Amino acid sequence: MQIPLDRDKPVPLARQIQAHLERLITARLLAPGVKLPATRELAQSLGVNRATVALAYEELVAAGWARAHVGQGTFVAGPPAGAAAPAAPPAARPLNWSALLSRSARIVESDGERARAAAPGAVRDGVISFAGGMPDSGLFPTDAFRRALNEVVREEGESLLQYYPVGGYPPLRRYLATYLLRFGLEARAEDILIVNGSQQGFDLIARTLLDPGDAVAIEQPTYPRAMQVFRSFGASLLAVDRDAAGPRVDAFERLLERQVPKFFYCQPCAHNPTGLTIRRDVAAGLLAAAARHQVPVVEDGFDGSLYYGARPPAPLKALDRDGVVVYIGTFSKVLFPGLRLGWLVAPPPLAERLRAAKQLADLHTSALIQAAVHRFCERRLLDRHVARIAAEYRRRRDTLVAALKRRMPEDVTWTEPEGGFSLLVTLPAGLDAGALLPRALERGVAYTPGAAFWVDDSGERTLRLSFSSVPGGKIDEGVRRLGEVVRAARRRPAHPVERVAAPTV
Amino acid sequence: MQIPLDRDKPVPLARQIQAHLERLITARLLAPGVKLPATRELAQSLGVNRATVALAYEELVAAGWARAHVGQGTFVAGPPAGAAAPAAPPAARPLNWSALLSRSARIVESDGERARAAAPGAVRDGVISFAGGMPDSGLFPTDAFRRALNEVVREEGESLLQYYPVGGYPPLRRYLATYLLRFGLEARAEDILIVNGSQQGFDLIARTLLDPGDAVAIEQPTYPRAMQVFRSFGASLLAVDRDAAGPRVDAFERLLERQVPKFFYCQPCAHNPTGLTIRRDVAAGLLAAAARHQVPVVEDGFDGSLYYGARPPAPLKALDRDGVVVYIGTFSKVLFPGLRLGWLVAPPPLAERLRAAKQLADLHTSALIQAAVHRFCERRLLDRHVARIAAEYRRRRDTLVAALKRRMPEDVTWTEPEGGFSLLVTLPAGLDAGALLPRALERGVAYTPGAAFWVDDSGERTLRLSFSSVPGGKIDEGVRRLGEVVRAARRRPAHPVERVAAPTV
Repeated sequence: MQIPLDRDKPVPLARQIQAHLERLITARLLAPGVKLPATRELAQSLGVNRATVALAYEELVAAGWARAHVGQGTFVAGPPAGAAAPAAPPAARPLNWSALLSRSARIVESDGERARAAAPGAVRDGVISFAGGMPDSGLFPTDAFRRALNEVVREEGESLLQYYPVGGYPPLRRYLATYLLRFGLEARAEDILIVNGSQQGFDLIARTLLDPGDAVAIEQPTYPRAMQVFRSFGASLLAVDRDAAGPRVDAFERLLERQVPKFFYCQPCAHNPTGLTIRRDVAAGLLAAAARHQVPVVEDGFDGSLYYGARPPAPLKALDRDGVVVYIGTFSKVLFPGLRLGWLVAPPPLAERLRAAKQLADLHTSALIQAAVHRFCERRLLDRHVARIAAEYRRRRDTLVAALKRRMPEDVTWTEPEGGFSLLVTLPAGLDAGALLPRALERGVAYTPGAAFWVDDSGERTLRLSFSSVPGGKIDEGVRRLGEVVRAARRRPAHPVERVAAPTV
Repeated sequence: MQIPLDRDKPVPLARQIQAHLERLITARLLAPGVKLPATRELAQSLGVNRATVALAYEELVAAGWARAHVGQGTFVAGPPAGAAAPAAPPAARPLNWSALLSRSARIVESDGERARAAAPGAVRDGVISFAGGMPDSGLFPTDAFRRALNEVVREEGESLLQYYPVGGYPPLRRYLATYLLRFGLEARAEDILIVNGSQQGFDLIARTLLDPGDAVAIEQPTYPRAMQVFRSFGASLLAVDRDAAGPRVDAFERLLERQVPKFFYCQPCAHNPTGLTIRRDVAAGLLAAAARHQVPVVEDGFDGSLYYGARPPAPLKALDRDGVVVYIGTFSKVLFPGLRLGWLVAPPPLAERLRAAKQLADLHTSALIQAAVHRFCERRLLDRHVARIAAEYRRRRDTLVAALKRRMPEDVTWTEPEGGFSLLVTLPAGLDAGALLPRALERGVAYTPGAAFWVDDSGERTLRLSFSSVPGGKIDEGVRRLGEVVRAARRRPAHPVERVAAPTV
């Protein structure tokens, strides 16, 4: 630790050390519980007598700033009651940071302010939450993964912990090439780029294709964080409405006749928030229109593994004869979101540009994580895990749909998800899901208001119910509470001013 | 696996399956060594008789496309000799991807082409390479880290593998707050943003502050990948020349009087490529000029841990009274580059914007990696490791400097590094380090030509020698070879057309 000492001052050195530490503790620069340096160590680094440091520590302990544990050392306790916070010296020439922000940062700021202004507080105990669009961590194969991690560090640690080529860990890329063939998607290992989850996929695609002022066509409703990324690069979003069969081909074609978007973004399988899957003829129609108009399709490929029907649909990329599709895959849904591991499959000229963008963004994705996931997959542990969670999520979906049928007023409708983690409910005309959320939270149930999934902020009658992380036994009770809230609201509609948006994943 | 079967065709189903697999193998979509699905599994997914699949596999084995291992299954062998590659069906309407690229992607492409055009081949065995600016993986504390990883997955796996808040793992941020105090840098845990190595730090700062057409002031020579990132956001670079004491304050002030850069980027401690450290009065002069002109300073903080002098210098951020400095820290040098783990400390208004940019870029950095590094640090294993490697790198530096003194012609000069991994050599007038590299490789020694470290492509007389990853026993011999190459070149200068640039870290 560096403590500026003034040996010419009349203030004793011990007192100077003490005052400096008090200031650091009050400013939370030294947090409670932090161990102070050993007296000998600090004395040496400051060039003072050890007794001087010991005296300073004793004073701190005596006044309640620190606690001494014999044989262990001296630990920060926090400022004693009544200690005045020292005023930070004001900056003489503070920078005006907002004047320095880039256009992108200003867009992100205003998007973020909108979300923050409407963010709910923490959800209290006892609330049944359908709001989190994540897998259930109670189902994680944590221990098996720990063993895989252990093995790869033991066997290849040195090379996995060194700088690594940007494309990714070759065995994982080979595994993915074979894995994707299950869904009919043909990609060579060297055409697969490993990225930090699908979020980084959006980002790399956006920075490679978008300039300020460009347009992006996007199905509606859609995943909010994809919209945010495209907007942050200065793009405007053009909505293509969906129905139960997928994005409407006629609407897409009309749009392409009038405008030239840089690409079209969609989630054909297990769509978030609806859980719906695109019909084969709709997929073919979209691809034909895209190729005719020379517009790339960015496919956010929640893959066929978490599909609850008889046979998962083919990804658009598997049907793509013209090389227009860029595919984004992820391990966040089928394995662990926290690994931040996903991949891109792009036509070669674009793939090379995405690789260059990835290298500039963060050099490469942790090879250690890649190798551990590969080891886990190679042992067929992923297949076993996915079979287990798909069965569980299918049960939860069935329970949720049954509960909605039983508990909801007749004029409430919802999508019937064939995959994924969630479904979308539409409330009767006149109700606003955002405005209703505070009442729902009070009644003990949480959800995600649907407005965030719409490009044009319509959709205020909708809400997303995610069933993936709600224990099966709580689903019916959660829906019962929600039904009550909806019924009560029809008698006394909430004022839209109260509208609240939950964080979305 | 999905195999399209046409039951109306006169071709038997087994033959159709066989032909499909042959195509996948030839196109390397099924790589040698990959296990084909079990016959029962594939038969079920295709809705055919198991014998049909078995027949297809037998034919593949008979013709040499696959190998059967009794009890294990059938494995891809690769296309048999003489098998003709099937022509890929041409895309009817191929996209013109280059017309779709963003401005940023085009900048990155032309930067990349320049580098590629000059890239050397693989370095052959026996070459002593001073070219890699990375830590020596032979010194990695791999096993201790494996144990830390194991513990945190065991104890907190479920939460570490789920989505995580963007700021980072709180105990690691608290550890860093205390760690940075050693160097006099005061930051609260909540002001520290965890990122994927310093490369992502550059990227987040650039996207938060830079618009196309902006200028960035940058010390010269400097780290090439930082330049690439700033350029990719459309910025132009303004060079501030360095001398042995750091970036020249007079040059910086003259620049600020004429132009308004968005920020000034520098590496004050253990500078790459020179290994030099900024003098205290120069640091103060730069900060005063920056504050006066309201220009932020981006400090790439190769921290004081790998400093070989008596006492590491204070980071600029520790001297910053006006809140103009953004500090970038990394575990890549002191621990493992492959973890991709670093951090940013920024003044609060900017810190919030950087956090928002990080969230859009990839949601968060793996909490698992953060927790493992925290566990490792908390046990003081980082301190012990750093003490060990600093001693070793200091010895290698001493060996290198002694060898240069002994072996180099008199008109060759070099910097005397006080920290870091490398030093910069300047060849006599008339020699070009890039042009000389092929001869050096032939003679069995590699280095990084210095031109890449210059904003204006000057510096062709310089070359970087990195001592961190060269075993101490090989340094003298490497310098001996280099000395011979230089002496030979003075008799017969290389033609600049041969110039070659090595990849730079």
